[in-house]
Amino acid sequence: MAAGETARIEAFSDGVFAIAITLLVLDMKVPRALDAGRTLASALGAMWPTYLAFVTSFSTILIMWINHHRMFTLIGRADDRLMFYNGLLLLGVTIVPFPTALVAEYLRHDGQKTAAALYNGTFIFIAICFNLLWRTAAVGDRLLYTHASRQAVQRIFDAYRYGPLWYVIAFILAFVSVTASLVVNLALAIFFARPNAAGPDRSS
Amino acid sequence: MAAGETARIEAFSDGVFAIAITLLVLDMKVPRALDAGRTLASALGAMWPTYLAFVTSFSTILIMWINHHRMFTLIGRADDRLMFYNGLLLLGVTIVPFPTALVAEYLRHDGQKTAAALYNGTFIFIAICFNLLWRTAAVGDRLLYTHASRQAVQRIFDAYRYGPLWYVIAFILAFVSVTASLVVNLALAIFFARPNAAGPDRSS
Amino acid sequence: MAAGETARIEAFSDGVFAIAITLLVLDMKVPRALDAGRTLASALGAMWPTYLAFVTSFSTILIMWINHHRMFTLIGRADDRLMFYNGLLLLGVTIVPFPTALVAEYLRHDGQKTAAALYNGTFIFIAICFNLLWRTAAVGDRLLYTHASRQAVQRIFDAYRYGPLWYVIAFILAFVSVTASLVVNLALAIFFARPNAAGPDRSS
Amino acid sequence: MAAGETARIEAFSDGVFAIAITLLVLDMKVPRALDAGRTLASALGAMWPTYLAFVTSFSTILIMWINHHRMFTLIGRADDRLMFYNGLLLLGVTIVPFPTALVAEYLRHDGQKTAAALYNGTFIFIAICFNLLWRTAAVGDRLLYTHASRQAVQRIFDAYRYGPLWYVIAFILAFVSVTASLVVNLALAIFFARPNAAGPDRSS
Repeated sequence: MAAGETARIEAFSDGVFAIAITLLVLDMKVPRALDAGRTLASALGAMWPTYLAFVTSFSTILIMWINHHRMFTLIGRADDRLMFYNGLLLLGVTIVPFPTALVAEYLRHDGQKTAAALYNGTFIFIAICFNLLWRTAAVGDRLLYTHASRQAVQRIFDAYRYGPLWYVIAFILAFVSVTASLVVNLALAIFFARPNAAGPDRSS
Repeated sequence: MAAGETARIEAFSDGVFAIAITLLVLDMKVPRALDAGRTLASALGAMWPTYLAFVTSFSTILIMWINHHRMFTLIGRADDRLMFYNGLLLLGVTIVPFPTALVAEYLRHDGQKTAAALYNGTFIFIAICFNLLWRTAAVGDRLLYTHASRQAVQRIFDAYRYGPLWYVIAFILAFVSVTASLVVNLALAIFFARPNAAGPDRSS
Repeated sequence: MAAGETARIEAFSDGVFAIAITLLVLDMKVPRALDAGRTLASALGAMWPTYLAFVTSFSTILIMWINHHRMFTLIGRADDRLMFYNGLLLLGVTIVPFPTALVAEYLRHDGQKTAAALYNGTFIFIAICFNLLWRTAAVGDRLLYTHASRQAVQRIFDAYRYGPLWYVIAFILAFVSVTASLVVNLALAIFFARPNAAGPDRSS
Repeated sequence: MAAGETARIEAFSDGVFAIAITLLVLDMKVPRALDAGRTLASALGAMWPTYLAFVTSFSTILIMWINHHRMFTLIGRADDRLMFYNGLLLLGVTIVPFPTALVAEYLRHDGQKTAAALYNGTFIFIAICFNLLWRTAAVGDRLLYTHASRQAVQRIFDAYRYGPLWYVIAFILAFVSVTASLVVNLALAIFFARPNAAGPDRSS
């Protein structure tokens, strides 16, 4: 556990990430009252947009948590501005189950572009919050540990420079093809989550 | 993490705050079975009272958590009385999603004054609990760390002297204009949450 | 935070207590589709059994958490038997929202005795688990800290000797008068939660 | 609390386990609108598949948490590969409430084989993740504490060698007899959870 001042911010944030990621399952509704001649297996099969949305959102929140964790291994102090941007970030994370449910409900129906745009919009919002949070901590070393590795700090700056851009691309794609947009989302999460990724900090 | 005796109280309280703030999203129901000719975008647009209530409650719970955190950086011991008032405070925090859902459902309909009065009543209750909790800990330095900064202690006394009053004003306003009452609530949360606020303790 | 071996058990248990206590709010359903001429205030007023059940369950879970916390300030080691009884205890705590919802739904209707019996049965089950957990740790000082205060240990033995008995009385009362049974439950929670209670351990 | 690098992974994982185990209760729906002449007691009695599924899933998640806890008392460092497999494991744990609800709804109805197969399939997936997680940490002592007991490490290798096999047997059984499959599941959980089990590590 990170020592000192930021520990309780991390503990609270961990709680919010863990709850948001677990609440996603509440969207998987048990199919009830099957029509005559329809099997449970086929009813479950028809729910594939729900599974796709679940896995994408789960992976994305998990990656966000890992990144949050990486940042706070370098952040040694907190101030009101950091608390504010961390709060905005958590607001975004907390909302994720809602656009996830929208995508699961409307994929392949009218309204799917609206749903996918909101879904990606939420991720863009979170990516911007991550940038603001990191810049608050790291520009001029405002709140970093004095012993924070320069290399690790630089890796995070590099990673966040283009992160939001990918979500903007997925957002725009949603108006062309919703499926392509979701595939980009899932690919982004898998890309960042894969083992041995050239991530910001391999060792923690 | 605060050392010693109060650490598990803080951990448990953090859990309750984190869960209450995340459960707020369960109130955002995916619109289903759209009427003919109605788009998802317009159905989502019509849900604005839900978003307003969500953001207001999220901000308010977040501010409460920050204040709870600030208090406990100064509180070094716990006794049954502190546990009791902390329990009452958590009862208030736990309830918040219910009046939030009431406001979201009834804003701009009959019953909105009742909903807004209950919403503000919950915040008044929590503000009173905060006062009782703080006075239990701080009057006569009963449970404070011996090294607690006098200045930080005084800032909290000052902040809490008038805090509940604002929620009483919002409560009364609810009977004149529900919208004005909610705007005061949101303004209070933003006021206390803004970066560089003259908050009780800038450094943690 | 308790040091060492039992810390993660406590953290996990805290999580379960905190989530179970916060999920209680999900039972407070916003009244929808009011009948003509009925106000929101009267619809909310008619929900009083829900509030009574909420406050009783909240208080009871909170007291249980405080007692769990007190025990683990004295328990220094864990073994499989302790993990087993702690698991059974958490199973009981996790279930609480269900009989709470039953009481809220059926109070003053047919079936209220069944609901109240189940409600009290859950608390008897939890009280028995607390006894088994404590005896596993404390008989022969099996798992206690060597420096655990004899007085504090004895106080817990005393408190738990008669604890389950009260819930058995409330259980039997349910078959005579459901209201009286609930009042005993609430009184028990308030009795144990009141400030300056002659509780097992005033100082933590 | 485990020191250092892996502490926040454990804290986050604990949160997910604790929330998933507590969300199981949301599946116990209060019976409403009883048919004429039907008592609440008989309506509750008819819900026995829900209780069986609840107890089985609760016990299984609890055992998984205990095993996760045991592993991490030996794991001293984290890398991206460990994070990845831990993430996959948490994905499995998070999903558990869904197949649990499926089993509760479809036991003794058409579709029960599909439900039981999915239920066991989830546990096979989790057991495989546990193996991958442990092998990532322990093969060649990659991420273990240098002082980790050889005996404790070997016990975990032994326990995990045949663990998934049992869930595969329960999976296959589901196509012969769903009840027998569930009984194996519950027996597995009770077997691993019983006090004085010849578990991997008695002392923590």
